[in-house]
Amino acid sequence: MQKGKFITIDGVEGAGKSTQINFIFDYLNNKGINVILTREPGGSDIGEKIRALLLSADSNMHSDTELLLMFAARNEHIHTKILPTLAQGDWVLSDRFTDASYAYQGGGRGLDITRIAQLEDWVLQGFKPDMTLLLDVPVDIGMKRVASRGAKDRIEQEDLSFFKRVRDAYISRSEQYPKRIKLIDASQSAEHTSAQIQTILSTL
Amino acid sequence: MQKGKFITIDGVEGAGKSTQINFIFDYLNNKGINVILTREPGGSDIGEKIRALLLSADSNMHSDTELLLMFAARNEHIHTKILPTLAQGDWVLSDRFTDASYAYQGGGRGLDITRIAQLEDWVLQGFKPDMTLLLDVPVDIGMKRVASRGAKDRIEQEDLSFFKRVRDAYISRSEQYPKRIKLIDASQSAEHTSAQIQTILSTL
Ligand SMILES: Nc1ncnc2c1ncn2[C@@H]1O[C@H](COP(=O)(O)OP(=O)(O)OP(=O)(O)O)[C@@H](O)[C@H]1O
Ligand SMILES: Nc1ncnc2c1ncn2[C@@H]1O[C@H](COP(=O)(O)OP(=O)(O)OP(=O)(O)O)[C@@H](O)[C@H]1O
Ligand SMILES: [Mg+2]
Ligand SMILES: [Mg+2]
Repeated sequence: MQKGKFITIDGVEGAGKSTQINFIFDYLNNKGINVILTREPGGSDIGEKIRALLLSADSNMHSDTELLLMFAARNEHIHTKILPTLAQGDWVLSDRFTDASYAYQGGGRGLDITRIAQLEDWVLQGFKPDMTLLLDVPVDIGMKRVASRGAKDRIEQEDLSFFKRVRDAYISRSEQYPKRIKLIDASQSAEHTSAQIQTILSTL
Repeated sequence: MQKGKFITIDGVEGAGKSTQINFIFDYLNNKGINVILTREPGGSDIGEKIRALLLSADSNMHSDTELLLMFAARNEHIHTKILPTLAQGDWVLSDRFTDASYAYQGGGRGLDITRIAQLEDWVLQGFKPDMTLLLDVPVDIGMKRVASRGAKDRIEQEDLSFFKRVRDAYISRSEQYPKRIKLIDASQSAEHTSAQIQTILSTL
């Protein structure tokens, strides 16, 4: 049933996901591909409401609750937006997807990877991105890039060691799934990152 | 670690759960038992926000999303309220619990029972009520009792056949777990229902 391609972009805060997703959007459009931009958590009406709950600075919650909410938003995202778009032959480009759950809730919060995988299987039933672009940057560089932003959300308020565990978890996943997850050095200029992405996309 | 007892009350709309939970509360208090009242979906700060999302009349959502949100709220309820209360030796009385997911999302929406059980295992890891009082009433009687209430929430807007499937699913569960789930005829007067509940509670 899937005809379009599903591409996700992931990485720590300030890696340049939102910057590069616009580059990819233009690149694909120029090749005549119809593509939509979306993001997680969010990407659907209910998903954006769940996102607000998840990121609200005063929402303290149990780690399993956080993971369940992430997957609730993801389920809605998949069924209302991603699958219908792919089915009509268009492409989908998502700013974050399931790998972020392994990185943030697994690496960051220390949730058991096996338990995350059980929930992934329950919700996604084998559905996966065709390609994931993992923008990798040392945590302190990413942090500096986003430092000028306003009030931090609940997850951005975590400390440096949290984000180092997130980065390590992302790198481990790219080593575990090297065919799907493309590890990209995003520590240099935006143009340098875009050039690497273009090389990879040209293989699709 | 659990010292108090965990009792849940369940059944279709208008069965008399909210009425009888107050009777049970008084009965246990009179026996010198410290007991708290709580409800699902809800029962915690995040849980009440998820409840609002779930019941909002304009929240259309995929059935799996609904189930994931129910279990997200339940997870928070368990960890922030139910387990801490039981651990300090007090009792917990909840207006609805996991059996409602089998009845509403399983019976009502037609979700696969095996998939519900997988999520139950993931979240509850074997934790169960010590006793569940299932108030059983024909759907049309329950509906008549609540008919005078104001605007219906998203789930109350379902049709009669939905609630009949809910009732049937509740009855099946009581047959499957006869030791834990006490099926109570709630079709007659509130006093008649209370008398049956008192007889059952006296065995605890
Ligand atoms: N390679 C780069 N070098 C320097 N600055 C960059 C680079 N890429 C992006 N930036 C700038 O860093 C900031 C963060 O970039 P961007 O918003 O794209 O990151 P992000 O990965 O989407 O972050 P978040 O995880 O917070 O959404 C922006 O101000 C952007 O202009
Ligand atoms: N046995 C009974 N006979 C007649 N009316 C009853 C009986 N029990 C409760 N009622 C009345 O029926 C209405 C619904 O009862 P209640 O609110 O206790 O049901 P409920 O199971 O909590 O419903 P809901 O699922 O909507 O929360 C109330 O007005 C209540 O006073
Ligand atoms: Mg961004
Ligand atoms: Mg009630």
